[in-house]
Amino acid sequence: MKYFEDYWPDQRSESPRCHTVTAEEIIEFGTRWDYQPFHVDPQAAKATPFGGLVASSTQLFAIAVGLWCHADVPTQSRSVAISALGFNNMRLQSPARPGDVLRGESVVKEKRLSQSHPEAGILVMHNKVLNQRDEVVFGYEHAALYRRRLEQT
Amino acid sequence: MKYFEDYWPDQRSESPRCHTVTAEEIIEFGTRWDYQPFHVDPQAAKATPFGGLVASSTQLFAIAVGLWCHADVPTQSRSVAISALGFNNMRLQSPARPGDVLRGESVVKEKRLSQSHPEAGILVMHNKVLNQRDEVVFGYEHAALYRRRLEQT
Repeated sequence: MKYFEDYWPDQRSESPRCHTVTAEEIIEFGTRWDYQPFHVDPQAAKATPFGGLVASSTQLFAIAVGLWCHADVPTQSRSVAISALGFNNMRLQSPARPGDVLRGESVVKEKRLSQSHPEAGILVMHNKVLNQRDEVVFGYEHAALYRRRLEQT
Repeated sequence: MKYFEDYWPDQRSESPRCHTVTAEEIIEFGTRWDYQPFHVDPQAAKATPFGGLVASSTQLFAIAVGLWCHADVPTQSRSVAISALGFNNMRLQSPARPGDVLRGESVVKEKRLSQSHPEAGILVMHNKVLNQRDEVVFGYEHAALYRRRLEQT
C-alpha cells in the first residue's frame, strides 16, 4: 500500500489499469443517471452534435476513479486514502466513444500535513484520462486525505 | 423541455425527484470503481473513521446528476442540454449512508450566450445535494451548453 510519504511534488504516475468504453456501459449509465439521446439511443445520438453515443460525465468520473481504485488494482499500487475532500476544474475535453481505451496519468501538485488529522496528510493530484490516440478526454484536480506511516514519525 | 431562455440568474430550483441510498448500491459502485473498505465491506467499514458504509464520490456524482436527468424525470422538467462543459468546486461535505434520502437544489450563477455555438447559451449552476436532515452532502458548480429557442430570435 502507498502512504502519504510515498508521494512527492511533481511525481508522475501511470494508472495501473486501462478501461475499454462499450456502448452497453454508456447506455447503462445514461439510462440510470443521465437520460439524454447521446447517452442512451444509438440512432438518436447520430442526429446530435456528437454524431453518436458518448460517455456521460458521471461515467467518465467513475472510469477515472476506477483506473486507480478498481478491485483489480494490485495492493502495491493502492493508496491508503482516508477520504476524498473534493475535486476542482473538472473538464470534459474530448468525447469518449464505444471502443475507446482509456488510461490515467496523475501528477502530484501539492503535499502538506493535515492540521485537523495528525494521522494524515493532504495530497492534491492533477488527474488526466487519455484515449488510445493520446487525446485528453477528461481532467480534474483531486484533493484527498492519505494516511501517514506514523510508526516512522 | 426547458431551453436556455427558461433560466435566469439567481433562479432556484428543487430537483424533480429524490434518491434513496442503499447498502447494495454503495457496494455495487465501490466494487466496480472505488474499492475501499468504507465502500465495499460493511464490517471493515465500522473500523474506519466513517464508522460504516458511505457512498463513494463517483456514486454521489451519479446520484446528483440523476436527481435532475433520470429517465423518470417528466419532459417539462428536462433541459435541452447540448453538452456539459465542466464542473468546479466539487466538495464532499457530509457522508451519505444507507437509508439516506437525497434531493437536489440548484441556483443559476451565470447566464451568457456562447461565442462558438450560436444555437446555444452557457449556464453555470451551483448544485447541492441534501439529505433528509437538510444537511448538504455534496456540492459543485456545473457549466453546460443549453439550446436556445432560435425560432424566437
